[in-house]
Amino acid sequence: MDLYSGHINRLIDELSSLPGIGGKSAQRLAFYIIGLPKDRVERLARSLTDARENVHYCSKCCTLTDDEICPICANEKRDHRTIMVVENTRDLAAYEKTGKYEGVYHVLHGAISPMLGIGPGDIKLKELVQRLQTETVDEVIIATNSSLEGETTGMYISKLIKPTGIKVTRIASGVPVGGDLEYIDEVTLLRALEGRTEL
Amino acid sequence: MDLYSGHINRLIDELSSLPGIGGKSAQRLAFYIIGLPKDRVERLARSLTDARENVHYCSKCCTLTDDEICPICANEKRDHRTIMVVENTRDLAAYEKTGKYEGVYHVLHGAISPMLGIGPGDIKLKELVQRLQTETVDEVIIATNSSLEGETTGMYISKLIKPTGIKVTRIASGVPVGGDLEYIDEVTLLRALEGRTEL
Repeated sequence: MDLYSGHINRLIDELSSLPGIGGKSAQRLAFYIIGLPKDRVERLARSLTDARENVHYCSKCCTLTDDEICPICANEKRDHRTIMVVENTRDLAAYEKTGKYEGVYHVLHGAISPMLGIGPGDIKLKELVQRLQTETVDEVIIATNSSLEGETTGMYISKLIKPTGIKVTRIASGVPVGGDLEYIDEVTLLRALEGRTEL
Repeated sequence: MDLYSGHINRLIDELSSLPGIGGKSAQRLAFYIIGLPKDRVERLARSLTDARENVHYCSKCCTLTDDEICPICANEKRDHRTIMVVENTRDLAAYEKTGKYEGVYHVLHGAISPMLGIGPGDIKLKELVQRLQTETVDEVIIATNSSLEGETTGMYISKLIKPTGIKVTRIASGVPVGGDLEYIDEVTLLRALEGRTEL
């Protein structure tokens, strides 16, 4: 629809292509942005391109970071013999927020999903196996989501690691089935961590 | 919180400063944006700065436009003797979407609100009065929102224009009291237009 001028339409189109932003929200946002001071808009635009340009995978745990190695992997006070495997950086943040987990992480950036055609080769599993071969690891805690894909991925990883003799555990299903880790309260997350069982 | 790296945190901060985007949505958006192809992010960022740089007020009706005069004011097929006064460009778009209004518009960019300290001098009223002095106008249709501010603004404008002898009408209150024009269905908007009464 050509209700607005070219630049406004283009901005609305771009904004409404983002997840969770519908047509009406995109309109509201567009007019809000046009009304902002010029330097605020430039700062917003720069934060987008800067993040996209400078953020990459940690060379150890594959989380998103500005540096070669992320602050958690670089922290010598963390227990580097315990690795928690999560699906994405937001799930890592959810456990970090509890402030009680002292180990390190491995971020898969996805989960195995035959439905969506996502196989073991499409997530950061190779990198996990490599870590287990080069680092001394006592325990791998599987903290993928308790969705079908998350469970599948957890089972796959446990079968992969078991032969190496490393202890593999799964966070307890205090997490509601079908739920998404990042939306769960910290107490439940901790309970799930405490109740983890060996696979 | 320093859960993420500097660039990610900055992006999340910038996004969550936008209206209607909370912390969780900002996180989701940030990771979505970081995962997009580079040229898509650059296009998104450019659409923000381009819109902010190039969009300005139409020199006739004060709507937001890329050109000196907006497409509606430049359209000779429109009835330039009928001016509909709206609070903002989104409200203009709401009436344009009905496809039945043939007159032109005047966009106030706000409404009089003693509570918020917004007086007649803070909205594009001077520009409306100037138009009425230089153009031949038969009717001014007041289509401000049916909120307290919108009604106040409508009354103020009608008192201002009445002495000039120009017909002043108000869209019918088919629009629910307290409602916001842009969220109302087209049939209700048209009914309100048809049922307008002289003030």
